Amino acid sequence: MKIQNAEFKMQNFKTLQFPISNFQFSIFNAIFLGLLAILIFSGNATAGQPGEDYGTASLMVIVEREAGSVIIIDSSRHKFLGRVSNLGNLIHATVKFSKDARYAYVIGRDANVSKIDLVKLKLVKRVKAGDDSVGGVMTQDGKYVALSNYVPGEVRILDAETLETVKIIPAEREYPDGKKIAARVVGLVDAPGNLLIFSMMDGDGIWVVDAGKKDFPVIKKFWDIGETPYDGLITPDGRYYIAGLLNSNWVGLLDTWDMTEVKRISTIRTKDARETGEGLVPLWKIPHLKGWAIAGDYAVLPAIKREVALVYNTRDWSIIKEVPLVGTALYTVAGPDGRYVWVDLVGKNGDTIQVIDLKTLEVVKTFSPGKGATHPQFTPKGDAVYISLMDEYKVVVYNPATFEKITEFPAEKPSGIFSTERAHKFGM
Amino acid sequence: MKIQNAEFKMQNFKTLQFPISNFQFSIFNAIFLGLLAILIFSGNATAGQPGEDYGTASLMVIVEREAGSVIIIDSSRHKFLGRVSNLGNLIHATVKFSKDARYAYVIGRDANVSKIDLVKLKLVKRVKAGDDSVGGVMTQDGKYVALSNYVPGEVRILDAETLETVKIIPAEREYPDGKKIAARVVGLVDAPGNLLIFSMMDGDGIWVVDAGKKDFPVIKKFWDIGETPYDGLITPDGRYYIAGLLNSNWVGLLDTWDMTEVKRISTIRTKDARETGEGLVPLWKIPHLKGWAIAGDYAVLPAIKREVALVYNTRDWSIIKEVPLVGTALYTVAGPDGRYVWVDLVGKNGDTIQVIDLKTLEVVKTFSPGKGATHPQFTPKGDAVYISLMDEYKVVVYNPATFEKITEFPAEKPSGIFSTERAHKFGM
Repeated sequence: MKIQNAEFKMQNFKTLQFPISNFQFSIFNAIFLGLLAILIFSGNATAGQPGEDYGTASLMVIVEREAGSVIIIDSSRHKFLGRVSNLGNLIHATVKFSKDARYAYVIGRDANVSKIDLVKLKLVKRVKAGDDSVGGVMTQDGKYVALSNYVPGEVRILDAETLETVKIIPAEREYPDGKKIAARVVGLVDAPGNLLIFSMMDGDGIWVVDAGKKDFPVIKKFWDIGETPYDGLITPDGRYYIAGLLNSNWVGLLDTWDMTEVKRISTIRTKDARETGEGLVPLWKIPHLKGWAIAGDYAVLPAIKREVALVYNTRDWSIIKEVPLVGTALYTVAGPDGRYVWVDLVGKNGDTIQVIDLKTLEVVKTFSPGKGATHPQFTPKGDAVYISLMDEYKVVVYNPATFEKITEFPAEKPSGIFSTERAHKFGM
Repeated sequence: MKIQNAEFKMQNFKTLQFPISNFQFSIFNAIFLGLLAILIFSGNATAGQPGEDYGTASLMVIVEREAGSVIIIDSSRHKFLGRVSNLGNLIHATVKFSKDARYAYVIGRDANVSKIDLVKLKLVKRVKAGDDSVGGVMTQDGKYVALSNYVPGEVRILDAETLETVKIIPAEREYPDGKKIAARVVGLVDAPGNLLIFSMMDGDGIWVVDAGKKDFPVIKKFWDIGETPYDGLITPDGRYYIAGLLNSNWVGLLDTWDMTEVKRISTIRTKDARETGEGLVPLWKIPHLKGWAIAGDYAVLPAIKREVALVYNTRDWSIIKEVPLVGTALYTVAGPDGRYVWVDLVGKNGDTIQVIDLKTLEVVKTFSPGKGATHPQFTPKGDAVYISLMDEYKVVVYNPATFEKITEFPAEKPSGIFSTERAHKFGM
């Protein structure tokens, strides 16, 4: 949209040049040319401006995974603003934001980091910061983008302004027999005190980094917290870090106020279904953990290979209930109202969304917004929810109170949806 | 800054008009005038642009109460952006934001509502919406600004786009003997389900309005919830509404998931200090309640006429501790880290800030940033805190982790500081 606007002005300029040649150079011509120059300059200065200005506090940045582009929508008015392309491989991409939501950082699976200007709607800079990345996070102070890389196994810290690498923290474990392994980094979050916390998928560890100190020292290392961490979250109050585990019947819980131990919080309420194999289903895709899984007194987490959502009491981390689902959960997303949790299923019934009411702890709605439905993302106050329909090439917007569709936008195989409000949430 | 820019361009226009008069009207002149028109138009379109663009997600809007103006600072870079003046009487003014943080709504005590464009840094519109207003709130859907008016006692609902009054809800109580009173409205918040909840300072009531329905019906009325409500808050998860009471030894608690009763939550831990008069001090100023008084499992509320902060367990609303202060609390502001609560004192030691650590429930810091220190406001992720020094004519910015001053800005008797992040918080 913006580029087109600039081109239109340039065309005007070209057609206007012709009559000028019929006149002698005069003071009038000089003024005329000067005016033209000012006009062109002001055209350039506003080339990135759309037809109107907008605030950046409630934008949605939506990944078009196969096109390697993102579209930007103003969720306060459900208005399409523009598209930024040429961002590389965006399979499993994630998006982070500067504190003012001026810039988005799109992190691709191939560790390409693209800094996008959300006001001018253009790519500012792109760097390759590793070979295989699974995501990243902004530090609390907003100065750095930290990447959780699989290959090489490391946390790589980039200057948020320039995207230059300022620090690489190799994630490795040395065993007593001298064996040393490089670990894939998962569940990287920022935490109060300008800390970074992450888990090691291969080393079964949780490390804590002080991002406020020169050289980013690793200040804590916890080992053998459980088998094969796959993702992590920090609670919205910044207090608890939770690591999900692919091969253990618990999650690891670190109280950052104490920073002394990683507790084992069971993921099995009654009996050990995993050991007996009872009720186990295929692991269609590794689920995601995010701070949005926490709602008031409850944490609602996806279970691994089981068709239930686990509802915890966040005071003592006991399981209150296993809520039966019609498939396995990929995301569990609590609305800003803290009451309804939207569960995005994957694999069997993968087009289905189920909604849990935390008042009754029951599923109150099961529906399919369309083919390839995934990544529900609420507007900041929860009056609407955006959902990608990957196989219908569009993004749909629902009223979560009535389940009526508000509007939809065409999109090229859309996947992740990222609200700029995440700029202000730990671990997001 | 921006207005000056526009005037500069207009002056250019005027001086350029003179030579035109020396020429006959020609196609060249027509083009020339056309270009001028485009230039002026594009000048107007960008008149509001500062030297550089910025995101609006982490701005601070700071009230200069006696000058009747606000200044706008980008807290992500601690950069002064500009000032908007001529906003009327801003004694006890409050500021609300559109969902995208494009617009700020400054509500003065005289019920003047000024809509300010935070991108162009200019006043868009101003209306008078009552005689005496104590604040307001945006509805969850962002469509309306609702005012809590003292005189006339009412909730007045304005269209957020046009500022036209779309509904007036008189706050009145009729007693069995036929006596009817108009009540001052306080503690107005928005709540999930597109509701508005408010308290009646004179009628001792709490009302609930459905702002999603035509005509904004009052759907619940609770009476005799306690004596003289003075302010209210809604918890960040949108579940509990709390009304503070000037003349009762409890606060009123409404669970919005049930909407059936207003429970009485004691404000006295051990014995009834109010009835005995023991430890009572003057009521320097009516304290403020806001959602930021909630941090994780704790609610930290100012006590009335007592030099303590009340720490509640938000699970059962029992008082865990009365934390002794060196004065009475005006505001209790939990940082986004959910651990440290900054208490703004008023009256005795009014220049003092005390910081409570929720891990130990002790005051860990007592300091004065300067004369007339008030209104601490954290940046969205809590890496800095802004404080007005009303009697030193400046705003200071502290690092809350080290208590070092980061920077300061001159300001004309600054009072309230409002982060645009509030656009996304219920009741803020």
